[in-house]
Amino acid sequence: MKKWLLSTIFGLSILLISIIPALADGPVKTLPGDITLAQAQKILTAAVKKAEEIKVPMNIAIVDAGGNLKAFYRQEDAFIGSIDISIKKAVTARYFNMSTRALGAASQVGKSLYGIEVSNNGLILFAGGVLLVDGNNVIIGAIGVSGGSVDEDESVAMAGAAVIK
Amino acid sequence: MKKWLLSTIFGLSILLISIIPALADGPVKTLPGDITLAQAQKILTAAVKKAEEIKVPMNIAIVDAGGNLKAFYRQEDAFIGSIDISIKKAVTARYFNMSTRALGAASQVGKSLYGIEVSNNGLILFAGGVLLVDGNNVIIGAIGVSGGSVDEDESVAMAGAAVIK
Amino acid sequence: MKKWLLSTIFGLSILLISIIPALADGPVKTLPGDITLAQAQKILTAAVKKAEEIKVPMNIAIVDAGGNLKAFYRQEDAFIGSIDISIKKAVTARYFNMSTRALGAASQVGKSLYGIEVSNNGLILFAGGVLLVDGNNVIIGAIGVSGGSVDEDESVAMAGAAVIK
Amino acid sequence: MKKWLLSTIFGLSILLISIIPALADGPVKTLPGDITLAQAQKILTAAVKKAEEIKVPMNIAIVDAGGNLKAFYRQEDAFIGSIDISIKKAVTARYFNMSTRALGAASQVGKSLYGIEVSNNGLILFAGGVLLVDGNNVIIGAIGVSGGSVDEDESVAMAGAAVIK
Repeated sequence: MKKWLLSTIFGLSILLISIIPALADGPVKTLPGDITLAQAQKILTAAVKKAEEIKVPMNIAIVDAGGNLKAFYRQEDAFIGSIDISIKKAVTARYFNMSTRALGAASQVGKSLYGIEVSNNGLILFAGGVLLVDGNNVIIGAIGVSGGSVDEDESVAMAGAAVIK
Repeated sequence: MKKWLLSTIFGLSILLISIIPALADGPVKTLPGDITLAQAQKILTAAVKKAEEIKVPMNIAIVDAGGNLKAFYRQEDAFIGSIDISIKKAVTARYFNMSTRALGAASQVGKSLYGIEVSNNGLILFAGGVLLVDGNNVIIGAIGVSGGSVDEDESVAMAGAAVIK
Repeated sequence: MKKWLLSTIFGLSILLISIIPALADGPVKTLPGDITLAQAQKILTAAVKKAEEIKVPMNIAIVDAGGNLKAFYRQEDAFIGSIDISIKKAVTARYFNMSTRALGAASQVGKSLYGIEVSNNGLILFAGGVLLVDGNNVIIGAIGVSGGSVDEDESVAMAGAAVIK
Repeated sequence: MKKWLLSTIFGLSILLISIIPALADGPVKTLPGDITLAQAQKILTAAVKKAEEIKVPMNIAIVDAGGNLKAFYRQEDAFIGSIDISIKKAVTARYFNMSTRALGAASQVGKSLYGIEVSNNGLILFAGGVLLVDGNNVIIGAIGVSGGSVDEDESVAMAGAAVIK
């Protein structure tokens, strides 16, 4: 059976499960397919594991498809100032549907988006914010990591994002 | 055929239509079922019609399921100060999944949520913010209206919300 | 008859129509000639048409002569982060009576306005914000577009602005 | 052996474990005894369990002794607007070393702290913010819960706080 057909059937099942309770409990409050807390916890666990491997304490933030905070961990000794940065990285990635590394590249001095960081109450334009794309190929949120070098941050974000693909 | 079955079949069709293009164009960027611009325009048109009937110029804001602005109209002579209020009314309704009238009732002096308005960069706690619930009984956003008395505002919001039920 | 004379007569007629109701209803609330919702809708429609032609989903914001939001549309799949940017582009264009491209050119590193983006709660200094000038050669507001490359954004803004000239 | 002696020995051991790596890696970055991510996760798990028992989806935030975010979970269908409220409840409790219920009682109309909510970028003055006091009787942070009635919120916060006593 083709992969997209399997994905579609899976997606339809999820929708059914979401619609049925609505008959009893009032309107459905969350769009079917948005990130769940269980998914967020799985992502956080994978990201923490990677951070421990590379021995860099991290702040790890996850936002949902609407760009709203879903879950957050700060490891011991991770920068206090990176709470806000990790959250802004996740928001920035989802707000522009690309990694903060990619957006940053287009926003350097002399590049077309120079100065974009003053919008949206502050964007973060260096690596460490990565999209969360699920097995149905839908963007369900983003992860932002801050605490080490930007390459370290991004490697932890990617380790987290990998577990839901 | 039962109504919920029809709704489910309709929802499934929408999901299918959303998933197929994703195979060609990268990940799906919007969760299936979120409010469309066409829906928002239909809501705005109905709200403007009501505002004209009651002869009160209005600001009308629509947010999506994630609480992010989708569409906005300001009629001639509508208060400039109501741009922000109408948007905050829509956001407030979606953020708490109830009308701003209901939230306001629980936030009066001596009531349990007194003072809640300082959160979320400012909530609006009087009538005029109403949920947008579609024909599948899913909350797909909210509408906020400001420009007249709170009862007038709410009547315009409800006229808008009615067209997608 | 000379063109300026026709324009003047036309302008006076508009003024008259605006003043007459005021005799009954208190002071005139809106400057004669400011952008109307009908004009804004016409501009939005033209901008959406252009965005569909170039196949880039956009956020489109229109502000009036006072720099205050008049109307807004977000198309499906347009960046959430571009809500704020499109509005700021329109505001920036009207605040300085030039396109954001022109202001941006004067604000690069080493240029005279370097750093101006931190004023006014954040200006946007790349293309996509364009003045709205009506048939009487009066600036009646501005349009800001965000969602694609800055050249794409500006082409959509200009398609919108063209319909009221 | 007396309980305080055991506590002291335990505390010293923790201190030693914290200081030893510091000899190699520069200054100790976190106060000995501050809440750990492991403790925060244990608290979150207990709070989620309680929320599931009472069938109210919640936002749950934990701050450390410095009042800075340590961990956060949002359950499915929990109010988006309660992200900020749950965090502000935790911050408020720690900033004034009392529950938000207690601070709220002193801040009602006519009471001595009336108006305090506008300080600190917004305090929350209703129940649901509770101090985290560890087995050594030290305040190591606070938990803030938002999503249901204020009594429900507080019961979930207390279920979380109970596990580290």
